[in-house]
Amino acid sequence: MTQPLATGSTIGILGGGQLGRMLSVAASRLGFKTCIFEPGGDCPASHVANFHLQAEYTDEEALRRFAESVDVITYEFENIPTSALDILEKLRPIHPNREALRVSQDRLTEKTWLTDLGLKVAPFADVTDAETMAAAVQHIGTPSILKTRRFGYDGKGQARLKSPEDAAQALADMNGAPAVLEGFVDFTAEISVIAARSQDGQVTAFDPGENVHKSGILDTTTVPAKLPARFQTDAVLMAGRILNALDYVGVLGVEFFVTPQELIINEIAPRVHNSGHWTQNGCAIDQFEQHIRAVAGWPLGDGQRHSDVVMENLIGDDMDRVPELAADPNCALHLYGKAEAKPGRKMGHVNRIIRG
Amino acid sequence: MTQPLATGSTIGILGGGQLGRMLSVAASRLGFKTCIFEPGGDCPASHVANFHLQAEYTDEEALRRFAESVDVITYEFENIPTSALDILEKLRPIHPNREALRVSQDRLTEKTWLTDLGLKVAPFADVTDAETMAAAVQHIGTPSILKTRRFGYDGKGQARLKSPEDAAQALADMNGAPAVLEGFVDFTAEISVIAARSQDGQVTAFDPGENVHKSGILDTTTVPAKLPARFQTDAVLMAGRILNALDYVGVLGVEFFVTPQELIINEIAPRVHNSGHWTQNGCAIDQFEQHIRAVAGWPLGDGQRHSDVVMENLIGDDMDRVPELAADPNCALHLYGKAEAKPGRKMGHVNRIIRG
Repeated sequence: MTQPLATGSTIGILGGGQLGRMLSVAASRLGFKTCIFEPGGDCPASHVANFHLQAEYTDEEALRRFAESVDVITYEFENIPTSALDILEKLRPIHPNREALRVSQDRLTEKTWLTDLGLKVAPFADVTDAETMAAAVQHIGTPSILKTRRFGYDGKGQARLKSPEDAAQALADMNGAPAVLEGFVDFTAEISVIAARSQDGQVTAFDPGENVHKSGILDTTTVPAKLPARFQTDAVLMAGRILNALDYVGVLGVEFFVTPQELIINEIAPRVHNSGHWTQNGCAIDQFEQHIRAVAGWPLGDGQRHSDVVMENLIGDDMDRVPELAADPNCALHLYGKAEAKPGRKMGHVNRIIRG
Repeated sequence: MTQPLATGSTIGILGGGQLGRMLSVAASRLGFKTCIFEPGGDCPASHVANFHLQAEYTDEEALRRFAESVDVITYEFENIPTSALDILEKLRPIHPNREALRVSQDRLTEKTWLTDLGLKVAPFADVTDAETMAAAVQHIGTPSILKTRRFGYDGKGQARLKSPEDAAQALADMNGAPAVLEGFVDFTAEISVIAARSQDGQVTAFDPGENVHKSGILDTTTVPAKLPARFQTDAVLMAGRILNALDYVGVLGVEFFVTPQELIINEIAPRVHNSGHWTQNGCAIDQFEQHIRAVAGWPLGDGQRHSDVVMENLIGDDMDRVPELAADPNCALHLYGKAEAKPGRKMGHVNRIIRG
């Protein structure tokens, strides 16, 4: 039986962006303090956290000081340097665990791991040079997508191949980074499941959301997803299998391609996920509190949906629409307090509540 | 036309308790920073605010520094010293305004003001000494309640008179503080309305909640209140009249006694109110965000109720029930991060969602 973390304890969060910000707020609801580890100054999470330790991930002394000032550690992004984890995990528990990070930090590892678990992913092949690229194109065919194995997000580090002639340019676009060639999936929709697992092994999932991307970045998530009932169940069961196989603690995002025949896993993220922001206005307990509950060894909350929601990201100059959205009675705004609205930068999101 | 405060601006909040804490979180949702002015250290609001200026309300230099570091000022409690307001209002706008504070800081002023507005309050009489006490008892009769004119909250500064013989003891209990004798209202229920008014004069109200007190402290608020439809409308209209008469900006709490014949106003509070905490899990926009929107010159949000809720305060060793409440799928916890659970101290609240 897990001993739950007492209210008043401090939760350490690696990363000070909007996910860390909303995790901090959720932690405060349960009476926890938070300490943010983040190299950048005036970061979104620092505005709502007790402490902000501003240091690089290579600063071993700062990492030690951070770990010693908190009771448990979690994170808002999966690309935490291994060297930092080595230091932190000797001092405090880290949730989700190393295995979840190992699997999800690398597309090749992730796809291999998911395949070994018996789950379906798009056809894929390892690409390190012109020779493996040629073999991959022959094996996977075109259209296909070349993606860096590591550090890709929001469509960055990706190159599309319409025909085999695009291979050389796509490989050049990787700048020498190890990559994976993914077969094109002719999907009818993209969905995601935000699932959670507690320290006692309790598993729960929010209703699947239907995602629409624009220029590689999530644009909207609509809940409920238009999806056959069988697929809804399948998606949740697959997320549950992944959680159990990883002995996972916390919230996990799983993205799927929907085809007329089946669900194909696109990728997993060992953290709260942009496509789960709708839960803030659709459920009594949102994904952020669910994650904090799991990390703190608390029982999971009830993520039953009370409202239908369309979440829309506010990116760059979408911020110009804030006055209009603020006046819309169906809209709940969530802004991240970022100083400057750059193109492609996620500045906030709006949850539009669909009244019955 | 009001110019709305730009996201990224800083809202100054006087008072660092749980109301300031939840106001800070709401401000963060709209991209605002917050600065808390509070004499106490490690206060609940400081855990989720950008800045905490720890100083006394008599510290003129600190008050000036606070005002100059923020764009607009609001507060979580009505007993702000006049001398502090004199300094602050010269430097930055304060919402709600001085008139709202003047009226609500003093029970005698408040009851007189409400009566002059044509609203019904319990019979009352000014009490300053044995002579005025005798006259008041003769005029109001017993049972009745003697209350200090200022600084009363959660049943503090009150003495009940069952018969005229209790007058001397009740007067002694006031310790020389000016008081008001209030006639006893034979009520069937207590309700409150949480209403808001924007800088443009837009007025809105959340559904009335039904309150039950225990030992003079709010115990539960249930929404919807069991109340004839006519009274629901009356309560909201009265709250609106008060807001307009005060040229009020922000959220106002109005408590009513319900009798079979009519609604009688018990008191008003020029701030977010404990009996409005249910809105956090009952509405897309809660009372805290509504207040921040008003103070920031934004349009008000939609406070339509999506769920029925019973809010229960967690006081003192009610904190022992947290593990059980955390495991209850119908409960959303809101804890204040207070270090020590003393008897009578509000440590948190739980919103129990009533499923249809």
